[in-house]
Amino acid sequence: MFFKKNKKRIFLDYASLTPIDENVLAKMKQVQKKTFANPSALYGEALIARDIIKESREKIAKILHSQKEEIFFTSGGTESNNLALLGIYEFCTRFHLVSGKPHIITTTIEHPAILEVCKEIEERGGEVTYLSVSEDGLVSLTDVRNALKENTILVTVSYANNEIGTVQPIHDIGRVIKDFRQKNSTKFPYFHTDACQAGLYLPLDVLKLGVDMMTLDGIKMYGPRNVGLLYVKSGVEISPVIFGGGQEKGKRSGTENTAGIAGLATAFEIAEKMREKEVERVGAIRDYGIKHLLKSFSDSTINGSIEHRLPNNINICFPDLDAEFAVVFLDVWGVSASYSSSCRTLKEDSSSYVIKSIGKEKCGESSLRFTLGRESKKSDIDTLIKILKRVVK
Amino acid sequence: MFFKKNKKRIFLDYASLTPIDENVLAKMKQVQKKTFANPSALYGEALIARDIIKESREKIAKILHSQKEEIFFTSGGTESNNLALLGIYEFCTRFHLVSGKPHIITTTIEHPAILEVCKEIEERGGEVTYLSVSEDGLVSLTDVRNALKENTILVTVSYANNEIGTVQPIHDIGRVIKDFRQKNSTKFPYFHTDACQAGLYLPLDVLKLGVDMMTLDGIKMYGPRNVGLLYVKSGVEISPVIFGGGQEKGKRSGTENTAGIAGLATAFEIAEKMREKEVERVGAIRDYGIKHLLKSFSDSTINGSIEHRLPNNINICFPDLDAEFAVVFLDVWGVSASYSSSCRTLKEDSSSYVIKSIGKEKCGESSLRFTLGRESKKSDIDTLIKILKRVVK
Repeated sequence: MFFKKNKKRIFLDYASLTPIDENVLAKMKQVQKKTFANPSALYGEALIARDIIKESREKIAKILHSQKEEIFFTSGGTESNNLALLGIYEFCTRFHLVSGKPHIITTTIEHPAILEVCKEIEERGGEVTYLSVSEDGLVSLTDVRNALKENTILVTVSYANNEIGTVQPIHDIGRVIKDFRQKNSTKFPYFHTDACQAGLYLPLDVLKLGVDMMTLDGIKMYGPRNVGLLYVKSGVEISPVIFGGGQEKGKRSGTENTAGIAGLATAFEIAEKMREKEVERVGAIRDYGIKHLLKSFSDSTINGSIEHRLPNNINICFPDLDAEFAVVFLDVWGVSASYSSSCRTLKEDSSSYVIKSIGKEKCGESSLRFTLGRESKKSDIDTLIKILKRVVK
Repeated sequence: MFFKKNKKRIFLDYASLTPIDENVLAKMKQVQKKTFANPSALYGEALIARDIIKESREKIAKILHSQKEEIFFTSGGTESNNLALLGIYEFCTRFHLVSGKPHIITTTIEHPAILEVCKEIEERGGEVTYLSVSEDGLVSLTDVRNALKENTILVTVSYANNEIGTVQPIHDIGRVIKDFRQKNSTKFPYFHTDACQAGLYLPLDVLKLGVDMMTLDGIKMYGPRNVGLLYVKSGVEISPVIFGGGQEKGKRSGTENTAGIAGLATAFEIAEKMREKEVERVGAIRDYGIKHLLKSFSDSTINGSIEHRLPNNINICFPDLDAEFAVVFLDVWGVSASYSSSCRTLKEDSSSYVIKSIGKEKCGESSLRFTLGRESKKSDIDTLIKILKRVVK
């Protein structure tokens, strides 16, 4: 193991995973003690479990400004994205709801949990348009508008990018889609957003956002593992991806994880309560970090928009740096960071397709991502810079 | 709430869900403390997580007599069954591995997490044969043999039934399938078994069982919720059901639940250690229960084989009983039981298709399932009989 013994490590990879909040753990423990029963059973312990799930659904719905019936619990963000995309695709295909190939619009910088599903949809006979983004990492409304076709069933754009933290104009894309629907008197396309990275920092009001489906995940919100959700607007019909006992109104079979669901609701409540202050606090550290990193390393550049950016995301290109080596080096000195999304780091191609997509081809192998969280402090940045100076030329 | 206050309840529905073992909870807590990192990352905390997952995989593989590379973690039994069935079906379909419609053989008494997937496969263009079972609830080897065809890609038979506890002759079915493969010089069909109900009580040696795929679930083994596995024999190729970051060697994308996986391994180890003694202890209570229930209620009959039966399953038909009412009545008096599988109890049709399938049409609405577990005692049966006498005529 690379750890320096007895030294507190600095964790700067909160975008890949957040620890579980103590209050979430306490809630889960409390629920586990109260009832372990299968919520589908008929006796008292099961009724308690059903009540807990109902109450959790209500708590989350309140935060999303949705109806509780519009919240579907899943095993996490990846599954929610699969359910949204494959769900719409299979439903439209099976019932021949559009003429021609069902068509989906997305962007080139989506998370693999979107891109790989899109590839699968192409395999199944669907059509996918991958919109490129600006140098800032932003998708253009005109591009979305121009890509819309009669057979477009879905537009899916992540609320905030997992690598460079770019926040997309979700509300405006929603407007473009609504205009198209009205003009063509059609209910298609639906609009889905993967909000996994946005959960802690951005407004989650689905009505204001104008989305039909939204993915959220406990592991990015100091919540439980293997518990996420998909918001599905009432009236939007999707096929299930997992078949069985018919839980979650048939949209997601499998025994419900009562304690996990209660823990997720607690994580949402805590996030909601902390949102405003954390955006400010973490945002200040981010601004401090970006400013001092760019100043400390000549020719270094920020990847992605500064203005439209998650308050916890720093992503810097250090020309000629071997980012993979740098991550290992930082680890030796007690800093946990990432050189693209962690979902990609074990793949053979260690470069970042997101950074290449914003036109910074050479930065694809020489950029580092530092993402902040509840434990982050300004002094972490100072330490980081000190250590980075040993590896960045 | 229906509970009698201050009275210890008797839980007789362990087939629907088991509580989490204290040692499993302790293990999960320990892992959570050690590392919360995304196992795909490159720094120390992630290496620790990867090591924990590797070690857990090895522990479970040892119990299953499999290679560790043959264990794929999922979000539970339902998902594992989906992955096995849809995985094989999609792979065979996409690569045109058989001529004609891919064909699957199963039985009429499978869990909805098998039957609903089979229905979906029929929707997608596949062919499914549903073998009926004997009055004992057993599938016949001759029926399996006769159903095998050139285009059969999979036989899926549950190790033990979730309602009536019938243990199927998995090893013998495996032999029939192997003979067919040899005679026809083909690798098809593969053989899958849903072993969720068997995990605590039956041998899990995949080599001796002769299966190519096997489903197991933490929630039936005093393990964590939302964590299960699919054993997939090396060489068996399946398509994923959930697409994304490519975790679990591409077979199951989504960030791994490190603590949950470690908890599952602990649950397996505890189950393995307790297996022999619990089979004997619980089996004695079951025998006592069956004997005294049948004696206490005239015209009552046992559903399913007595000989080939899970040691924890009692399923009795009480003629003219309204089973749904009886479950609620038992609940009032502090006993948790079930009148079919709990996955079915919230559906409109409250009768048991399993019991109807063994030719006891009238018993479909008047049977009760009592399933035993680690907390069960002989005196539970005595109390149960006393209470039942108030509701069974």
